[in-house]
Amino acid sequence: MHALIVYAHPEPKSFNAALLDVAKNTLADQGHAVDVSDLYGMNFKAVIDRSDFLTVRNPDHFNIPIEQRHATHNSGLAPDIVAELEKLKRADLVIFQFPLWWFGPPAILKGWIDRIFLSGVVYGRSAMFERGRLKGKRAMVSVTTGGPAASFGANALNGDILDILAPLHRGVFAFTGMTVLPPFVAYHVPYAGNAERCVMIDTFRAHLARLDTLQPLPMPRFADHEAVLAPTLTAVAH
Amino acid sequence: MHALIVYAHPEPKSFNAALLDVAKNTLADQGHAVDVSDLYGMNFKAVIDRSDFLTVRNPDHFNIPIEQRHATHNSGLAPDIVAELEKLKRADLVIFQFPLWWFGPPAILKGWIDRIFLSGVVYGRSAMFERGRLKGKRAMVSVTTGGPAASFGANALNGDILDILAPLHRGVFAFTGMTVLPPFVAYHVPYAGNAERCVMIDTFRAHLARLDTLQPLPMPRFADHEAVLAPTLTAVAH
Repeated sequence: MHALIVYAHPEPKSFNAALLDVAKNTLADQGHAVDVSDLYGMNFKAVIDRSDFLTVRNPDHFNIPIEQRHATHNSGLAPDIVAELEKLKRADLVIFQFPLWWFGPPAILKGWIDRIFLSGVVYGRSAMFERGRLKGKRAMVSVTTGGPAASFGANALNGDILDILAPLHRGVFAFTGMTVLPPFVAYHVPYAGNAERCVMIDTFRAHLARLDTLQPLPMPRFADHEAVLAPTLTAVAH
Repeated sequence: MHALIVYAHPEPKSFNAALLDVAKNTLADQGHAVDVSDLYGMNFKAVIDRSDFLTVRNPDHFNIPIEQRHATHNSGLAPDIVAELEKLKRADLVIFQFPLWWFGPPAILKGWIDRIFLSGVVYGRSAMFERGRLKGKRAMVSVTTGGPAASFGANALNGDILDILAPLHRGVFAFTGMTVLPPFVAYHVPYAGNAERCVMIDTFRAHLARLDTLQPLPMPRFADHEAVLAPTLTAVAH
Protein backbone atom coordinates (compact mmCIF):
# COMPACT_ATOMS: atom_id res chain seq x y z
CA MET A 1 0.00 0.00 0.00
CA HIS A 2 1.15 3.52 -0.80
CA ALA A 3 0.41 6.59 1.29
CA LEU A 4 0.81 10.22 0.31
CA ILE A 5 1.02 12.88 2.99
CA VAL A 6 0.56 16.40 1.69
CA TYR A 7 2.05 18.61 4.36
CA ALA A 8 1.69 22.39 4.58
CA HIS A 9 3.50 24.17 7.41
CA PRO A 10 6.43 26.58 7.11
CA GLU A 11 8.19 25.67 10.38
CA PRO A 12 10.12 22.37 10.71
CA LYS A 13 9.90 22.55 14.52
CA SER A 14 6.12 23.06 14.54
CA PHE A 15 3.57 20.68 16.03
CA ASN A 16 2.37 20.03 12.49
CA ALA A 17 5.88 18.77 11.69
CA ALA A 18 5.67 16.47 14.71
CA LEU A 19 2.34 15.10 13.47
CA LEU A 20 3.89 14.57 10.04
CA ASP A 21 6.63 12.48 11.64
CA VAL A 22 4.08 10.44 13.58
CA ALA A 23 2.13 9.69 10.39
CA LYS A 24 5.27 8.84 8.40
CA ASN A 25 6.56 6.48 11.07
CA THR A 26 3.23 4.87 11.97
CA LEU A 27 2.31 4.21 8.35
CA ALA A 28 5.79 2.89 7.56
CA ASP A 29 5.54 0.57 10.58
CA GLN A 30 2.27 -0.70 9.11
CA GLY A 31 4.14 -1.59 5.94
CA HIS A 32 3.06 1.37 3.78
CA ALA A 33 5.41 3.02 1.34
CA VAL A 34 5.06 6.68 2.31
CA ASP A 35 5.45 9.64 -0.03
CA VAL A 36 5.54 13.11 1.51
CA SER A 37 4.87 16.32 -0.36
CA ASP A 38 6.34 18.96 1.95
CA LEU A 39 4.85 21.93 0.14
CA TYR A 40 6.84 24.64 1.96
CA GLY A 41 10.00 22.58 1.78
CA MET A 42 9.49 22.11 -1.96
CA ASN A 43 8.71 25.80 -2.43
CA PHE A 44 5.61 24.53 -4.18
CA LYS A 45 4.04 27.01 -6.61
CA ALA A 46 0.56 27.70 -5.23
CA VAL A 47 -1.02 29.66 -8.06
CA ILE A 48 -2.36 28.04 -11.20
CA ASP A 49 -1.43 30.06 -14.28
CA ARG A 50 -0.11 29.72 -17.84
CA SER A 51 3.21 28.39 -16.57
CA ASP A 52 1.41 25.21 -15.47
CA PHE A 53 1.44 24.25 -19.13
CA LEU A 54 4.19 23.79 -21.69
CA THR A 55 1.48 23.72 -24.36
CA VAL A 56 -1.04 26.38 -25.34
CA ARG A 57 -4.45 25.38 -26.62
CA ASN A 58 -5.84 28.91 -26.87
CA PRO A 59 -3.46 31.87 -26.61
CA ASP A 60 -6.33 34.40 -26.59
CA HIS A 61 -8.36 33.07 -23.69
CA PHE A 62 -6.90 31.19 -20.73
CA ASN A 63 -9.50 28.56 -19.87
CA ILE A 64 -8.03 26.28 -17.20
CA PRO A 65 -9.94 23.02 -17.79
CA ILE A 66 -9.38 23.29 -21.56
CA GLU A 67 -5.64 23.91 -21.14
CA GLN A 68 -5.43 21.09 -18.58
CA ARG A 69 -7.02 18.56 -20.92
CA HIS A 70 -4.94 19.73 -23.87
CA ALA A 71 -1.70 19.62 -21.91
CA THR A 72 -2.53 16.18 -20.52
CA HIS A 73 -2.91 14.78 -24.04
CA ASN A 74 0.16 16.55 -25.41
CA SER A 75 2.77 15.99 -22.70
CA GLY A 76 2.34 19.62 -21.75
CA LEU A 77 1.98 19.51 -17.98
CA ALA A 78 4.68 21.29 -15.97
CA PRO A 79 7.10 18.81 -14.36
CA ASP A 80 6.00 19.56 -10.80
CA ILE A 81 2.39 18.76 -11.71
CA VAL A 82 3.44 15.48 -13.33
CA ALA A 83 5.44 14.52 -10.23
CA GLU A 84 2.61 15.29 -7.79
CA LEU A 85 0.04 13.60 -10.01
CA GLU A 86 2.12 10.42 -10.03
CA LYS A 87 2.27 10.45 -6.23
CA LEU A 88 -1.50 10.96 -6.08
CA LYS A 89 -2.19 8.18 -8.59
CA ARG A 90 -0.14 5.60 -6.77
CA ALA A 91 -1.50 6.49 -3.33
CA ASP A 92 -4.04 4.21 -1.69
CA LEU A 93 -4.27 6.63 1.22
CA VAL A 94 -4.00 10.44 1.04
CA ILE A 95 -3.50 12.54 4.18
CA PHE A 96 -3.60 16.34 4.29
CA GLN A 97 -1.58 17.60 7.29
CA PHE A 98 -2.08 21.32 7.91
CA PRO A 99 -2.95 24.07 10.38
CA LEU A 100 -6.49 25.45 10.01
CA TRP A 101 -6.09 29.01 8.75
CA TRP A 102 -9.29 31.02 8.39
CA PHE A 103 -11.46 27.89 8.44
CA GLY A 104 -9.52 26.31 5.59
CA PRO A 105 -6.20 24.97 4.35
CA PRO A 106 -3.19 27.29 3.90
CA ALA A 107 -3.06 28.78 0.40
CA ILE A 108 -0.12 26.55 -0.54
CA LEU A 109 -2.28 23.45 0.06
CA LYS A 110 -5.31 24.93 -1.69
CA GLY A 111 -2.99 25.59 -4.61
CA TRP A 112 -1.81 21.98 -4.62
CA ILE A 113 -5.44 20.95 -5.08
CA ASP A 114 -6.15 23.65 -7.69
CA ARG A 115 -3.11 22.65 -9.77
CA ILE A 116 -2.99 18.84 -9.40
CA PHE A 117 -6.69 17.93 -9.57
CA LEU A 118 -6.79 18.22 -13.34
CA SER A 119 -9.84 18.32 -15.54
CA GLY A 120 -10.07 15.12 -17.57
CA VAL A 121 -7.73 13.30 -15.21
CA VAL A 122 -9.13 13.68 -11.71
CA TYR A 123 -12.59 14.96 -12.60
CA GLY A 124 -14.87 15.62 -15.54
CA ARG A 125 -18.56 15.57 -16.42
CA SER A 126 -20.32 12.83 -14.47
CA ALA A 127 -17.09 11.32 -13.09
CA MET A 128 -18.08 12.50 -9.64
CA PHE A 129 -18.58 10.95 -6.23
CA GLU A 130 -19.01 7.15 -6.53
CA ARG A 131 -18.11 7.48 -10.22
CA GLY A 132 -15.03 9.57 -9.50
CA ARG A 133 -11.63 8.86 -11.01
CA LEU A 134 -9.97 8.48 -7.58
CA LYS A 135 -12.40 5.78 -6.44
CA GLY A 136 -10.71 3.16 -4.29
CA LYS A 137 -8.44 5.62 -2.52
CA ARG A 138 -9.01 6.69 1.06
CA ALA A 139 -8.40 10.25 2.23
CA MET A 140 -8.09 11.92 5.60
CA VAL A 141 -7.52 15.36 7.07
CA SER A 142 -5.18 15.85 10.02
CA VAL A 143 -5.54 19.42 11.22
CA THR A 144 -4.46 21.66 14.07
CA THR A 145 -6.51 24.59 15.35
CA GLY A 146 -5.72 27.71 17.31
CA GLY A 147 -9.19 27.81 18.83
CA PRO A 148 -10.04 25.59 21.81
CA ALA A 149 -12.17 22.46 21.46
CA ALA A 150 -15.01 24.29 23.23
CA SER A 151 -15.23 26.77 20.34
CA PHE A 152 -16.10 23.97 17.90
CA GLY A 153 -19.37 22.04 17.84
CA ALA A 154 -22.81 22.33 16.31
CA ASN A 155 -23.85 24.96 18.86
CA ALA A 156 -20.45 26.47 19.52
CA LEU A 157 -19.00 29.77 18.31
CA ASN A 158 -17.16 28.43 15.27
CA GLY A 159 -19.62 25.66 14.41
CA ASP A 160 -18.96 21.97 13.84
CA ILE A 161 -15.46 21.11 12.65
CA LEU A 162 -17.03 18.70 10.12
CA ASP A 163 -18.92 21.63 8.59
CA ILE A 164 -15.70 23.65 8.45
CA LEU A 165 -13.91 20.76 6.73
CA ALA A 166 -16.83 19.92 4.40
CA PRO A 167 -15.31 21.71 1.39
CA LEU A 168 -12.33 19.32 1.64
CA HIS A 169 -14.28 16.22 2.64
CA ARG A 170 -17.17 16.57 0.24
CA GLY A 171 -15.82 18.99 -2.36
CA VAL A 172 -12.35 17.52 -2.86
CA PHE A 173 -12.16 13.96 -1.49
CA ALA A 174 -15.69 12.61 -2.07
CA PHE A 175 -16.18 14.66 -5.24
CA THR A 176 -13.29 12.79 -6.86
CA GLY A 177 -14.49 9.41 -5.60
CA MET A 178 -12.28 8.97 -2.57
CA THR A 179 -13.54 7.37 0.64
CA VAL A 180 -13.44 9.98 3.40
CA LEU A 181 -12.05 8.86 6.75
CA PRO A 182 -12.88 10.80 9.93
CA PRO A 183 -10.39 13.60 10.52
CA PHE A 184 -7.87 13.90 13.31
CA VAL A 185 -8.17 17.28 15.00
CA ALA A 186 -5.66 18.71 17.47
CA TYR A 187 -7.29 21.72 19.16
CA HIS A 188 -5.82 24.81 20.77
CA VAL A 189 -2.31 23.82 19.80
CA PRO A 190 -0.53 27.17 20.35
CA TYR A 191 -1.68 27.07 23.98
CA ALA A 192 -0.93 23.39 24.64
CA GLY A 193 2.01 22.51 26.86
CA ASN A 194 4.27 19.53 26.37
CA ALA A 195 2.10 17.12 28.33
CA GLU A 196 -0.99 18.03 26.31
CA ARG A 197 0.99 17.77 23.08
CA CYS A 198 2.18 14.30 24.04
CA VAL A 199 -1.43 13.22 24.62
CA MET A 200 -2.40 14.57 21.20
CA ILE A 201 0.51 12.74 19.57
CA ASP A 202 -0.57 9.49 21.22
CA THR A 203 -4.16 10.05 20.15
CA PHE A 204 -3.05 10.63 16.56
CA ARG A 205 -0.94 7.48 16.61
CA ALA A 206 -3.98 5.51 17.85
CA HIS A 207 -6.17 7.12 15.15
CA LEU A 208 -3.69 6.02 12.47
CA ALA A 209 -3.44 2.54 13.94
CA ARG A 210 -7.15 1.92 13.53
CA LEU A 211 -7.70 3.47 10.08
CA ASP A 212 -9.11 0.18 8.78
CA THR A 213 -11.82 0.12 11.40
CA LEU A 214 -12.87 3.78 11.21
CA GLN A 215 -16.31 4.31 9.76
CA PRO A 216 -16.03 6.52 6.65
CA LEU A 217 -18.03 9.74 6.64
CA PRO A 218 -21.35 9.48 4.81
CA MET A 219 -21.23 11.19 1.43
CA PRO A 220 -23.79 11.75 -1.34
CA ARG A 221 -24.03 9.45 -4.35
CA PHE A 222 -24.18 10.80 -7.86
CA ALA A 223 -26.69 8.11 -8.83
CA ASP A 224 -29.22 9.57 -6.38
CA HIS A 225 -29.08 12.92 -8.20
CA GLU A 226 -28.59 11.77 -11.77
CA ALA A 227 -32.19 12.26 -12.86
CA VAL A 228 -32.21 15.86 -11.67
CA LEU A 229 -28.84 16.62 -13.22
CA ALA A 230 -29.20 14.70 -16.51
CA PRO A 231 -30.41 17.70 -18.56
CA THR A 232 -27.35 19.70 -17.54
CA LEU A 233 -24.82 16.98 -18.35
CA THR A 234 -25.27 17.35 -22.08
CA ALA A 235 -24.67 21.11 -21.99
CA VAL A 236 -21.92 22.33 -24.29
CA ALA A 237 -19.20 24.59 -22.94
CA HIS A 238 -18.86 28.02 -24.55
CA MET B 1 -17.96 55.30 1.13
CA HIS B 2 -15.06 53.12 0.01
CA ALA B 3 -15.39 49.72 -1.59
CA LEU B 4 -12.66 47.13 -2.06
CA ILE B 5 -13.10 44.37 -4.63
CA VAL B 6 -10.63 41.53 -4.27
CA TYR B 7 -10.65 39.80 -7.64
CA ALA B 8 -9.09 36.43 -8.41
CA HIS B 9 -9.27 35.21 -11.99
CA PRO B 10 -6.36 34.76 -14.42
CA GLU B 11 -8.26 35.62 -17.64
CA PRO B 12 -9.17 39.25 -18.44
CA LYS B 13 -11.88 38.08 -20.89
CA SER B 14 -13.53 35.77 -18.35
CA PHE B 15 -17.06 36.11 -17.02
CA ASN B 16 -15.49 36.88 -13.64
CA ALA B 17 -13.80 39.88 -15.26
CA ALA B 18 -17.19 40.98 -16.62
CA LEU B 19 -18.68 40.73 -13.13
CA LEU B 20 -15.77 42.77 -11.78
CA ASP B 21 -16.56 45.49 -14.30
CA VAL B 22 -20.22 45.46 -13.33
CA ALA B 23 -19.34 45.85 -9.66
CA LYS B 24 -16.79 48.62 -10.31
CA ASN B 25 -19.21 50.58 -12.44
CA THR B 26 -22.31 50.04 -10.35
CA LEU B 27 -20.56 50.98 -7.11
CA ALA B 28 -18.93 54.02 -8.72
CA ASP B 29 -22.34 55.11 -10.02
CA GLN B 30 -23.61 54.88 -6.44
CA GLY B 31 -20.86 57.28 -5.41
CA HIS B 32 -18.40 54.81 -3.91
CA ALA B 33 -14.67 55.19 -4.30
CA VAL B 34 -13.71 51.74 -5.57
CA ASP B 35 -10.37 50.00 -4.97
CA VAL B 36 -9.67 46.81 -6.88
CA SER B 37 -7.06 44.24 -5.90
CA ASP B 38 -6.62 42.26 -9.11
CA LEU B 39 -4.61 39.45 -7.54
CA TYR B 40 -3.53 37.77 -10.78
CA GLY B 41 -2.85 41.12 -12.42
CA MET B 42 -0.70 42.14 -9.43
CA ASN B 43 1.09 38.78 -9.44
CA PHE B 44 0.13 38.69 -5.78
CA LYS B 45 2.29 36.41 -3.63
CA ALA B 46 -0.08 33.77 -2.27
CA VAL B 47 2.10 31.99 0.27
CA ILE B 48 2.81 33.44 3.69
CA ASP B 49 6.46 32.95 4.64
CA ARG B 50 9.47 34.73 6.19
CA SER B 51 9.56 37.20 3.31
CA ASP B 52 6.29 38.67 4.59
CA PHE B 53 8.39 40.38 7.25
CA LEU B 54 11.34 42.74 7.14
CA THR B 55 11.82 42.06 10.84
CA VAL B 56 12.58 38.81 12.65
CA ARG B 57 11.26 38.23 16.15
CA ASN B 58 12.51 34.65 16.46
CA PRO B 59 15.02 33.32 13.93
CA ASP B 60 14.84 29.77 15.34
CA HIS B 61 11.12 29.16 15.13
CA PHE B 62 8.82 30.76 12.55
CA ASN B 63 5.58 31.44 14.41
CA ILE B 64 3.30 33.45 12.14
CA PRO B 65 1.10 35.35 14.66
CA ILE B 66 4.16 36.28 16.71
CA GLU B 67 6.06 37.55 13.65
CA GLN B 68 2.95 39.40 12.46
CA ARG B 69 2.53 41.27 15.73
CA HIS B 70 6.24 42.02 15.99
CA ALA B 71 6.42 43.28 12.42
CA THR B 72 3.31 45.40 12.89
CA HIS B 73 4.88 47.20 15.84
CA ASN B 74 8.29 47.60 14.18
CA SER B 75 7.42 48.74 10.66
CA GLY B 76 8.37 45.28 9.47
CA LEU B 77 5.47 44.31 7.22
CA ALA B 78 6.30 43.70 3.55
CA PRO B 79 5.13 46.60 1.35
CA ASP B 80 2.45 44.58 -0.45
CA ILE B 81 0.88 43.64 2.90
CA VAL B 82 0.90 47.28 4.01
CA ALA B 83 -0.76 48.35 0.75
CA GLU B 84 -3.50 45.72 0.92
CA LEU B 85 -4.09 46.35 4.61
CA GLU B 86 -4.62 50.05 3.89
CA LYS B 87 -7.21 49.21 1.25
CA LEU B 88 -8.94 46.85 3.68
CA LYS B 89 -8.92 49.40 6.50
CA ARG B 90 -10.48 52.16 4.43
CA ALA B 91 -13.14 49.92 2.88
CA ASP B 92 -16.72 50.16 4.10
CA LEU B 93 -17.65 47.34 1.74
CA VAL B 94 -15.48 44.36 0.77
CA ILE B 95 -16.37 42.11 -2.17
CA PHE B 96 -14.60 38.88 -3.07
CA GLN B 97 -15.04 38.14 -6.80
CA PHE B 98 -13.87 34.65 -7.75
CA PRO B 99 -14.67 31.34 -9.44
CA LEU B 100 -15.48 28.50 -7.03
CA TRP B 101 -12.59 26.02 -7.30
CA TRP B 102 -12.93 22.83 -5.29
CA PHE B 103 -15.63 24.33 -3.06
CA GLY B 104 -13.45 27.28 -2.14
CA PRO B 105 -11.60 30.37 -3.33
CA PRO B 106 -8.60 30.07 -5.67
CA ALA B 107 -5.32 29.72 -3.77
CA ILE B 108 -4.30 33.27 -4.67
CA LEU B 109 -7.37 34.62 -2.83
CA LYS B 110 -6.92 32.27 0.13
CA GLY B 111 -3.36 33.58 0.30
CA TRP B 112 -4.58 37.18 0.33
CA ILE B 113 -6.61 36.31 3.43
CA ASP B 114 -3.77 34.33 5.05
CA ARG B 115 -1.30 37.19 4.54
CA ILE B 116 -3.41 40.32 5.11
CA PHE B 117 -5.61 39.26 8.02
CA LEU B 118 -2.86 39.86 10.56
CA SER B 119 -2.80 38.77 14.17
CA GLY B 120 -3.08 41.79 16.43
CA VAL B 121 -4.49 43.92 13.64
CA VAL B 122 -7.47 42.07 12.18
CA TYR B 123 -7.95 39.45 14.91
CA GLY B 124 -6.69 38.48 18.33
CA ARG B 125 -7.94 36.88 21.52
CA SER B 126 -11.58 37.80 22.09
CA ALA B 127 -11.67 40.35 19.26
CA MET B 128 -14.02 38.07 17.35
CA PHE B 129 -17.45 38.30 15.77
CA GLU B 130 -19.36 41.32 17.18
CA ARG B 131 -16.14 42.37 18.94
CA GLY B 132 -14.05 41.99 15.80
CA ARG B 133 -11.64 44.65 14.59
CA LEU B 134 -13.40 45.00 11.22
CA LYS B 135 -16.78 45.76 12.79
CA GLY B 136 -18.77 48.29 10.78
CA LYS B 137 -17.63 46.97 7.42
CA ARG B 138 -19.89 44.95 5.15
CA ALA B 139 -18.62 42.02 3.11
CA MET B 140 -20.00 39.99 0.23
CA VAL B 141 -19.00 37.07 -1.96
CA SER B 142 -19.65 37.13 -5.70
CA VAL B 143 -18.88 33.70 -7.09
CA THR B 144 -19.22 31.72 -10.31
CA THR B 145 -19.67 27.96 -10.41
CA GLY B 146 -19.09 25.28 -13.02
CA GLY B 147 -21.84 23.10 -11.62
CA PRO B 148 -25.48 23.83 -12.49
CA ALA B 149 -27.89 25.44 -10.03
CA ALA B 150 -29.63 22.07 -9.65
CA SER B 151 -26.47 20.57 -8.13
CA PHE B 152 -26.60 23.05 -5.24
CA GLY B 153 -29.17 23.02 -2.43
CA ALA B 154 -29.68 21.41 0.96
CA ASN B 155 -30.68 18.10 -0.64
CA ALA B 156 -28.64 18.41 -3.84
CA LEU B 157 -25.43 16.66 -4.84
CA ASN B 158 -23.04 19.41 -3.76
CA GLY B 159 -25.07 20.68 -0.80
CA ASP B 160 -26.19 24.22 -0.02
CA ILE B 161 -24.03 26.98 -1.48
CA LEU B 162 -24.25 28.78 1.88
CA ASP B 163 -22.65 25.76 3.56
CA ILE B 164 -19.92 25.74 0.92
CA LEU B 165 -19.27 29.45 1.49
CA ALA B 166 -19.51 29.21 5.30
CA PRO B 167 -15.73 29.21 5.84
CA LEU B 168 -15.62 32.62 4.14
CA HIS B 169 -18.87 33.99 5.56
CA ARG B 170 -18.45 32.81 9.13
CA GLY B 171 -14.73 32.07 9.35
CA VAL B 172 -13.37 35.18 7.61
CA PHE B 173 -16.04 37.90 7.38
CA ALA B 174 -18.08 37.38 10.57
CA PHE B 175 -15.05 36.19 12.56
CA THR B 176 -13.41 39.58 12.06
CA GLY B 177 -16.59 41.49 12.83
CA MET B 178 -17.84 42.26 9.36
CA THR B 179 -21.53 42.20 8.46
CA VAL B 180 -22.11 39.43 5.92
CA LEU B 181 -24.33 40.28 2.96
CA PRO B 182 -26.01 37.50 0.95
CA PRO B 183 -23.75 36.29 -1.86
CA PHE B 184 -24.30 36.64 -5.57
CA VAL B 185 -23.95 33.27 -7.29
CA ALA B 186 -23.69 32.77 -11.06
CA TYR B 187 -24.19 29.05 -11.74
CA HIS B 188 -23.02 26.83 -14.60
CA VAL B 189 -21.07 29.65 -16.18
CA PRO B 190 -18.88 27.64 -18.58
CA TYR B 191 -22.07 26.30 -20.18
CA ALA B 192 -23.98 29.57 -20.30
CA GLY B 193 -24.54 31.26 -23.63
CA ASN B 194 -24.54 34.99 -24.20
CA ALA B 195 -28.22 35.45 -23.42
CA GLU B 196 -27.91 33.62 -20.10
CA ARG B 197 -24.78 35.58 -19.26
CA CYS B 198 -26.59 38.85 -19.93
CA VAL B 199 -29.35 37.80 -17.53
CA MET B 200 -26.77 36.99 -14.87
CA ILE B 201 -25.07 40.35 -15.39
CA ASP B 202 -28.42 42.13 -14.97
CA THR B 203 -29.18 40.10 -11.85
CA PHE B 204 -25.80 41.01 -10.36
CA ARG B 205 -26.36 44.69 -11.15
CA ALA B 206 -29.73 44.52 -9.38
CA HIS B 207 -28.15 42.72 -6.41
CA LEU B 208 -25.58 45.49 -6.08
CA ALA B 209 -28.23 48.18 -6.45
CA ARG B 210 -30.11 46.91 -3.42
CA LEU B 211 -27.19 46.18 -1.08
CA ASP B 212 -28.63 48.51 1.56
CA THR B 213 -31.88 46.58 1.71
CA LEU B 214 -30.42 43.06 1.74
CA GLN B 215 -30.87 41.21 5.01
CA PRO B 216 -27.43 40.25 6.37
CA LEU B 217 -26.83 36.56 7.03
CA PRO B 218 -27.35 35.54 10.67
CA MET B 219 -24.04 34.96 12.44
CA PRO B 220 -23.09 33.88 15.96
CA ARG B 221 -22.26 36.37 18.70
CA PHE B 222 -19.19 36.00 20.85
CA ALA B 223 -21.12 37.20 23.88
CA ASP B 224 -23.40 34.14 23.68
CA HIS B 225 -20.35 31.84 24.02
CA GLU B 226 -18.19 33.89 26.35
CA ALA B 227 -18.99 31.92 29.50
CA VAL B 228 -18.02 28.65 27.86
CA LEU B 229 -14.84 30.07 26.37
CA ALA B 230 -13.71 32.25 29.29
CA PRO B 231 -11.35 29.63 30.81
CA THR B 232 -9.51 29.28 27.49
CA LEU B 233 -9.07 33.01 26.93
CA THR B 234 -6.48 33.36 29.63
CA ALA B 235 -4.34 30.51 28.27
CA VAL B 236 -0.73 31.42 27.58
CA ALA B 237 0.83 30.57 24.23
CA HIS B 238 3.84 28.26 24.32
